[in-house]
Amino acid sequence: MSVGEDTLQAIRGVVGAKGWIDLEQDMAPYLVEQRGNYRGRCAAVVRPDSTGQVAQVVSICAQAKVPIVPQGGNTGLAGGAVADGGIVLATGRLNRIRRVDPLNRTIFVEAGCILADVQAAAEEAGCLFPLSLGAEGSCQIGGNLSTNAGGVAVMRYGNARDLVLGIEAVLPDGRVYDGLKELRKDNSGYDLKHLFIGAEGTLGIITAAILKLFARPPFKETALAAAPSLEGVLELFARAGAAAGDSLTAFEMISATAAEFAVRHIDGARDPFNAPHPYYALMEMSGFGGGLGEILQAILARGFEDGAVADAVIAASESQARELWLMRESVSEAQKYEGASIKHD
Amino acid sequence: MSVGEDTLQAIRGVVGAKGWIDLEQDMAPYLVEQRGNYRGRCAAVVRPDSTGQVAQVVSICAQAKVPIVPQGGNTGLAGGAVADGGIVLATGRLNRIRRVDPLNRTIFVEAGCILADVQAAAEEAGCLFPLSLGAEGSCQIGGNLSTNAGGVAVMRYGNARDLVLGIEAVLPDGRVYDGLKELRKDNSGYDLKHLFIGAEGTLGIITAAILKLFARPPFKETALAAAPSLEGVLELFARAGAAAGDSLTAFEMISATAAEFAVRHIDGARDPFNAPHPYYALMEMSGFGGGLGEILQAILARGFEDGAVADAVIAASESQARELWLMRESVSEAQKYEGASIKHD
Repeated sequence: MSVGEDTLQAIRGVVGAKGWIDLEQDMAPYLVEQRGNYRGRCAAVVRPDSTGQVAQVVSICAQAKVPIVPQGGNTGLAGGAVADGGIVLATGRLNRIRRVDPLNRTIFVEAGCILADVQAAAEEAGCLFPLSLGAEGSCQIGGNLSTNAGGVAVMRYGNARDLVLGIEAVLPDGRVYDGLKELRKDNSGYDLKHLFIGAEGTLGIITAAILKLFARPPFKETALAAAPSLEGVLELFARAGAAAGDSLTAFEMISATAAEFAVRHIDGARDPFNAPHPYYALMEMSGFGGGLGEILQAILARGFEDGAVADAVIAASESQARELWLMRESVSEAQKYEGASIKHD
Repeated sequence: MSVGEDTLQAIRGVVGAKGWIDLEQDMAPYLVEQRGNYRGRCAAVVRPDSTGQVAQVVSICAQAKVPIVPQGGNTGLAGGAVADGGIVLATGRLNRIRRVDPLNRTIFVEAGCILADVQAAAEEAGCLFPLSLGAEGSCQIGGNLSTNAGGVAVMRYGNARDLVLGIEAVLPDGRVYDGLKELRKDNSGYDLKHLFIGAEGTLGIITAAILKLFARPPFKETALAAAPSLEGVLELFARAGAAAGDSLTAFEMISATAAEFAVRHIDGARDPFNAPHPYYALMEMSGFGGGLGEILQAILARGFEDGAVADAVIAASESQARELWLMRESVSEAQKYEGASIKHD
C-alpha cells in the first residue's frame, strides 16, 4: 500500500530532519537482509530519538493504517526486519545507556544500544552482561529482546528473555507500556513483559529495558575438542555438565562443514588440529571457585581413553581462547560466501 | 451464590466419589488460611485426578457460571486460596512425577506434586531442583508456579517462573493449553506460559509443568553473621556478591525480632551467638570449583575488621548448616504464634 503524503509529513514533523530518510540510496541498507535473500520496500525510514517520538509515530500510523516494521541492527538472517510497504521504524537513535547499578546488578538501556556497548558498560562497572552472539558488534538490544536471542551462553544464563527485569514498549495504538521494574524477586501479579519479548515487534515496539547483570567470574577455561562422532559430542556434553555443572558456561557443537566454511572465508579463523574431524565441541567453563582447569583436563583425558575425543586443545591465554571462539563465531558470516544456511544463533 | 444441584451432580459424575468432598468437616481444611485470618465457604471440594477431569469440571462450571478457586497445598498466608462460594478445585491428586531426564536436566510433573517430592525426585536422578521455601513439605508445585514463589535460592536460580520450560493449563472455558515444551533454547514465537505463572489461577489452572533441573554443586559453605546495622548487612551482601558471584546461592537477612520469634516458638531453632544482635545474615555459597570456604572466611574477616560483622559462625557440617537454616525457615511458622506478619517468602 502507498502511504499518504499528509501522513508522511506528520511523521516527519515528529522526528524532524535528523530522524527522516526517504532517499532511495539512503534507505537501501534498511531494506536488505544481509545475505541478500530478501529485499524490501517502504515509504520512509523513520528514526525517532525518544520513546515519546516512537509513541507519536505509532499513533499516527495506527490512525492512518500504515504498517510499521520495527528494526534494530538489521542483522537478522530470516527476513523478519524487511519491510513490505509502510514505514521502517529504526531504533538506532534510542542508544543511551541510562543507568548502571553494580550493587543491584542492573543496567537500564534504550532499545537501540548496540549489544557490544551494553557488554562494555557492564564490564566498566565490574559486571558481566552475558548475552553474546556473532553479530554483537552491530545488533541492538531491542532486536535481541524482540527475537529472544540465544547466543553462546544460553546454557548458563538463558535466552535474552531470561536476562530482563523490566520492559518499556509502545503499544500498537501508540500508548506506552511502562514495565520498567528492577526488582529481582518480583512476584506481584501478571508479568506482561514476556508478551513483548520474542514477539518480533508484533505486539509493540520495545523502547527500553532493565537488564540483569552478573558478577564477572575470575576463573575461565576454554577448550576445543575434536570428536569422531555426534555420540561422542553428546557424551562429552553429559560429562562436562555433570562435572562442572553451572560452571560449564558454553558448549558449542561445530560440524566439519561449518568449521570448513569459517576457515575458508574468515580472516584469523583456523582449525587448530592437523587434520579435519567430523565434529568439534567448544567448551567454556567459568566460575568463582578454582579447579576448573583440572575438571576440564579430567573430562578430556577420559574422552581420549574411551574414544569420545580424538584430539583437543586447551587455551593457554585469553587470546588463544578468542581464537578458538573465532571459528564458532565466524560460521554465520562465512555462510554468506557459501550461500548456504547451517544454523542460526 | 449457590450452586445448582444439577451442576454439582454433573461435576461429581466427572470426578467420582474419590474426588468429591461435600461434608462440612471434610471441607474444613480446604476453607481456612493457616493462621486463621481468613475463612471461606464453598458448595464442594473437587479433587480431579487427571487434566481431562480438570477440563471437564471447568467446562461444566463455565457453562453454569460457577466460580472456581484452584487450590494446591493451601499453604499461602494471604488468603488467595480461600473460596467465597462456588467450588474449590484442589489439585492434590494430580501428583504424578511423569518423567525425569538427567541428560536434558528436566522433570515433568503434575501440578499437585509436593515441592519436597519434586526436590527428592531430582536428587535421586543426581540433579538439583533449587526451589526451596519453608512450606516445601506441603506446598504443591502448581501453587508455587501460580504464585510465582520465591524462596531462598532466588538470587542464584530466580523465582519459580525462571525454573519452568513448559506448562499445561486448563483455560477458563475448559480447553487445554498444551505448552509442554522441554527445549531450553526456544525462541520460537510468543511464550504464553508466562501468562499462567504468577496469575494465581485467574487465567487458567496449571495442571502440569516441565521444570529445569541443575547439576548438584559438590561444594557448599554456610555461615551466619551477626551485624550491628542494616548498612553492615548490605555491605556484606555487596562483598559476598563481588567475591563469590553466582556461587552466592542464598543471602537472607533476619531481623532480631524474626530471630526471636523463631527461637521462642520452634523446636530446634536457636541463636548460635551469646547475645542477641540487631541483624543476622545467613549466607550460602555453592559451586563446582573449590575455594569457597576461603572466600567466605575472607569476607567475614574483613567484616570483623571494619565492624560490618559483630560475630559469625561457619557451619562445619551439613547438620550444622541445617541448624542455621532452621532459624530462617521457622520465621513464617513462628509468626502464627505471635499473630504478627514480618515477611513472606
